[in-house]
Amino acid sequence: MTIRIFPTAQDAEIAFYEALEHADLEAMMSVWAEDEEIVCVHPTGPRLTGQDQVRESWRQIFAGGAGARVQVSQEAVTSGVMFAVHSVLENFAVEGQPQPAPVVATNVYLRTPAGWRMLAHHASPAPRQARAQARPAAQEVPKILH
Amino acid sequence: MTIRIFPTAQDAEIAFYEALEHADLEAMMSVWAEDEEIVCVHPTGPRLTGQDQVRESWRQIFAGGAGARVQVSQEAVTSGVMFAVHSVLENFAVEGQPQPAPVVATNVYLRTPAGWRMLAHHASPAPRQARAQARPAAQEVPKILH
Repeated sequence: MTIRIFPTAQDAEIAFYEALEHADLEAMMSVWAEDEEIVCVHPTGPRLTGQDQVRESWRQIFAGGAGARVQVSQEAVTSGVMFAVHSVLENFAVEGQPQPAPVVATNVYLRTPAGWRMLAHHASPAPRQARAQARPAAQEVPKILH
Repeated sequence: MTIRIFPTAQDAEIAFYEALEHADLEAMMSVWAEDEEIVCVHPTGPRLTGQDQVRESWRQIFAGGAGARVQVSQEAVTSGVMFAVHSVLENFAVEGQPQPAPVVATNVYLRTPAGWRMLAHHASPAPRQARAQARPAAQEVPKILH
């Protein structure tokens, strides 16, 4: 596997979503940190930790092949010297299918000796209106516990 | 509001879950960073940003009152000098009710001039088996896109 160096967290994020679009497992895993306990939560999925679990989950997701375009919007970024937290909406588009509801993702990146890498990716389905309306009306706030 | 100083990210996390259990809005908001763009995703909810949206969401959740106990388990922590990322399972218990499925949460903390504060909280329902089985079997990995 070619080792890729990402000079910024944004570079790592671009590579992450390119790998996702192309269903490219090696490119995907080149984005993740190697020496930290990485954490990945796919929409509606369990919490996965470590290279083996995270790789296996992407392998299974990518087994269906590429075909979805993903556009990232409404990015909220906080960053420091050694870390960056990107909150984004992921808007998927599959040709010939209605656009699904967006996914809200929290992406955490670390500056490592090998450049910026992903430490955590937590994704969950967002209510459809989150795409058009950044500030939810009161009635849209979930009423469930926590 | 009394300003609370949390000497460690763990102290902030303990205060976060205590405030959640007690449905204490002021205690909850004292955990969050004030000068950063905070991000909060409640289970199945939209992405909320900023003090106003986050406070309003907790106000609505807490309007139902306290009563749920929450136990945090399977913590995976990565921390640096200025940040900490805690991935946890939240196990809720409401007296007289069956235990709900756990919630998986990614909590990001920053070291600020006012001590450690929460920058991001992303929570989503976890499959029930995540409680008993840290490593999911292959068939449990969600088959949905991404």
